[in-house]
Amino acid sequence: MYKIVLLRHGESTWNKENRFTGWTDVDLTEQGVGEARVAGQLLKDEGYAFDLAFTSVLKRANKTLNIVLEELDSLWLPVEHSWRLNERHYGALQGLNKAETAAQYGDEQVLVWRRSYDTPPAPLEEGDARLNYDDPRYASLPRARFPRTECLQDTVARVVPYWETVIVPQILAGRRILVAAHGNSLRALIKYLDNISDADIVGLNIPTAQPLVYELDVNLKPVKSYYLADEDTIRAAQAAVAGQGKAKV
Amino acid sequence: MYKIVLLRHGESTWNKENRFTGWTDVDLTEQGVGEARVAGQLLKDEGYAFDLAFTSVLKRANKTLNIVLEELDSLWLPVEHSWRLNERHYGALQGLNKAETAAQYGDEQVLVWRRSYDTPPAPLEEGDARLNYDDPRYASLPRARFPRTECLQDTVARVVPYWETVIVPQILAGRRILVAAHGNSLRALIKYLDNISDADIVGLNIPTAQPLVYELDVNLKPVKSYYLADEDTIRAAQAAVAGQGKAKV
Repeated sequence: MYKIVLLRHGESTWNKENRFTGWTDVDLTEQGVGEARVAGQLLKDEGYAFDLAFTSVLKRANKTLNIVLEELDSLWLPVEHSWRLNERHYGALQGLNKAETAAQYGDEQVLVWRRSYDTPPAPLEEGDARLNYDDPRYASLPRARFPRTECLQDTVARVVPYWETVIVPQILAGRRILVAAHGNSLRALIKYLDNISDADIVGLNIPTAQPLVYELDVNLKPVKSYYLADEDTIRAAQAAVAGQGKAKV
Repeated sequence: MYKIVLLRHGESTWNKENRFTGWTDVDLTEQGVGEARVAGQLLKDEGYAFDLAFTSVLKRANKTLNIVLEELDSLWLPVEHSWRLNERHYGALQGLNKAETAAQYGDEQVLVWRRSYDTPPAPLEEGDARLNYDDPRYASLPRARFPRTECLQDTVARVVPYWETVIVPQILAGRRILVAAHGNSLRALIKYLDNISDADIVGLNIPTAQPLVYELDVNLKPVKSYYLADEDTIRAAQAAVAGQGKAKV
């Protein structure tokens, strides 16, 4: 049996400003830094240790991971970075305020954009400054395949191959794995692991910086999964995340 | 022609307490954190960017690197950790105060222990709590070859193979390299690169958290090397480091 830990990054500046972030490389807030520190302490108190960590190429996840590793006294740990663990690309919505967008288009339309499994928001147009082809962290990504928008289905389609080809061999080799990523890249992974339907995955809210443990059998099917924090903490954190897309927050 | 940057970690708690550190995994001081941040800003201001970083498995170097990468907006950068870039192992001196040791044995004996090319201090004895065989970061190191003490010659003997087999191929592949390490692992590397004699290497003082640029020709022979900071800053920083082994500081 194997055990892995999934972790969504702590609060970011655009979580706080209630903006659609996607691939925009925003920083953690002070609260986000504190959340990451608490997550690291919780993992330490519960006796968790890791051999290898996976994360995106976005600083809010990278920094969350570094803070957790510092708390675990494991800054020496090998870390693999991949754009495949990035947040869902939010297309033309990136940078817009969620509440303003909801006030203009209605809560329902925003919920479709945020959570529809197969309807992406409008793409970034060629020439849009937000289309950062030349960023060296994406050098391995052919321009024609550079995301200009994504629905969750698209995110699943890039996360699952990374899971299967890069992460799974490490789990099978007995390494204890931590994945520090984003709301939607983790949702994509959980959909695959738990075989959640397209309709139901929309309702799954992953709280920020709460270690989520998956115990997997020899075939890497989940036996059980649980947050390390107590139930009330998790419920409050999930409610906070679920409320972000509303016009009034 | 190639360009690499070498960086010694910022001030550590035991630099400050004037203790022999070696493989003891002490943290940066607040000043050390600040020094690392300045180093990162300097690299940024001078237009440096990197494709890959190498560091030890000791947190003072790892943290210095992370702070520099944060300033460079490059927390996504691949990082390779290796015990081969660790500080020189100081054997039984690890944890002792340098000034007290100098007062007891004399400045000259301490200078021999600190800087003799081929005379190691007394080794850690079997059973010494400081002999951390079971630390997972050293899992790849066979117990019989686990250092119990080192002279600089021993450090050279483990740093140079890492340079030749791991770092050099990456330089030749065109990757821009940052090495964040320690006073003696960098001294070992510089001795090799600049072909410095056993006698002269003793006098080379590498200041903490000062980016040191090496420009290398196609055969990886140094064409020139220079610190990014101005001469006065470097001279003062080198004098501070050189003074550490004295009885009175």
